[in-house]
Amino acid sequence: MNIFHTIKDLKNELNPLRHQKIALVPTMGNLHDGHLSLVNIAKQHADIVVVSIFVNPTQFGVGEDFDSYPRTLEADVDKLSGAADLVFAPSVEEMYPAYPPNVQVLSGEITKMLCGQTRPTHFDGVGLVVSKLFNIVRPDVAVFGKKDYQQLAIIRQLNDELNFGVEIIGAPIVRAQDGLALSSRNQYLTDSERATAPVLQQTLQAVAKTLQTADLMDYDALIDVAKSKLTQAGFVVDYLEIYNQKLQKVSCGDQALVLLVAARLGKARLLDNLEVVLNNPVSV
Amino acid sequence: MNIFHTIKDLKNELNPLRHQKIALVPTMGNLHDGHLSLVNIAKQHADIVVVSIFVNPTQFGVGEDFDSYPRTLEADVDKLSGAADLVFAPSVEEMYPAYPPNVQVLSGEITKMLCGQTRPTHFDGVGLVVSKLFNIVRPDVAVFGKKDYQQLAIIRQLNDELNFGVEIIGAPIVRAQDGLALSSRNQYLTDSERATAPVLQQTLQAVAKTLQTADLMDYDALIDVAKSKLTQAGFVVDYLEIYNQKLQKVSCGDQALVLLVAARLGKARLLDNLEVVLNNPVSV
Repeated sequence: MNIFHTIKDLKNELNPLRHQKIALVPTMGNLHDGHLSLVNIAKQHADIVVVSIFVNPTQFGVGEDFDSYPRTLEADVDKLSGAADLVFAPSVEEMYPAYPPNVQVLSGEITKMLCGQTRPTHFDGVGLVVSKLFNIVRPDVAVFGKKDYQQLAIIRQLNDELNFGVEIIGAPIVRAQDGLALSSRNQYLTDSERATAPVLQQTLQAVAKTLQTADLMDYDALIDVAKSKLTQAGFVVDYLEIYNQKLQKVSCGDQALVLLVAARLGKARLLDNLEVVLNNPVSV
Repeated sequence: MNIFHTIKDLKNELNPLRHQKIALVPTMGNLHDGHLSLVNIAKQHADIVVVSIFVNPTQFGVGEDFDSYPRTLEADVDKLSGAADLVFAPSVEEMYPAYPPNVQVLSGEITKMLCGQTRPTHFDGVGLVVSKLFNIVRPDVAVFGKKDYQQLAIIRQLNDELNFGVEIIGAPIVRAQDGLALSSRNQYLTDSERATAPVLQQTLQAVAKTLQTADLMDYDALIDVAKSKLTQAGFVVDYLEIYNQKLQKVSCGDQALVLLVAARLGKARLLDNLEVVLNNPVSV
């Protein structure tokens, strides 16, 4: 497995391989089993798997954890060896010779909801770096985790509207045995917070169960109850929402829904979500 | 020469040809000898020349000439036959299934100057459609006319910052015998306006001559004189500016400059420019 730090070197390596199917797994490094599952899924869909490791400054807001975000390239490369074919680990200067960049890729309304309410510039930073990575690697397939559900929806839209022509695969969330979704930011949790953290997923499960069994649904009341439970457990809830799986308001006929939550626990901001396919379509 | 109206059909045709060098010439149709010169230059740099013909709504502002812009596909195809290999002529619905699009590609400060002062959304519409065309065609080379000098600079920046990896070629302006730069919008001129129009280029030539011969330069005074001449001839001047060829303010050491003008004459808004390489670098 070769590691490339410049765009030129990566392209020189990839260009003769373009008759084969190429997959890209974009990451910010500090890899855990969740990332490795993305790499394994990529390998099932392509001949060559490129993993990018880049802590992208344009997706961090002022006062966010860009400086402290864990950078563990050596350990990451160890974990990828045998799973990925190529690692692309560029510097900030390599990715952004002009900083801040002049060109922006904005994804519109969908970036303003959910996590966009507290992180208003985050997803446009993601859209920019993913556009750049798509153009550099020119993958046939790219794999993104469903844990960042909103990000996945934004990248699908970006891929469609800018005609990248990449097959976008959403990979299932990988969880610890107690149900906590794996995340690099889990390491910000103290032991006692870590013990509390699975309540996030348990709460979504409870909402899903009610959604399946109740008939006429007052989503607002259901959400209020769930938020109270989380607050009592020690979370500061950013949002807990129910949408259809395109992240639109649930309306008559929808059957595939998703519950999404973001909540802070100590220093960590945790995300989770749960897809729910109702037994019957919504009828309002 | 085959004509394709859908992205899918175009890609199906292009994909087996990707071992050859592909050039793209993006146009809005209504082709004149200026466009045909771009196609000929493209042919010198590639095996396969794709000409796109698309009157792109996102680059027209409210009240601009989107509806009345001349659409002459049949005549365009006749002119291209023997010169281009493939023509891509999609509908608005094919290019923008969601309209207005959610995703925007913004090119920053450089879109605000010169033509951007009167057409504030124009260049971001250009950036969007060029990003889409680059992703659809995936050309090795793309040719743009120097007549739209600011557009060319914006596309070079876009290509660099989004890592499209396309070789961008700026093609010389093609002029009528009397010096008027060819443009689809020249047909908006009455006979008497058409007789006046070459004054635009003559004025730039005069400024260039003074720049070469005078020593210490008061650009503002020079520009004021030139603007007065144009106004007297019947033009309404949008701007007349002197920049270095990167469209930055001229500063000490610059030697390659460009004079740029936009002026309205009757219903037509005419653009022209003139590159000037000084005998000696600017010393202030």
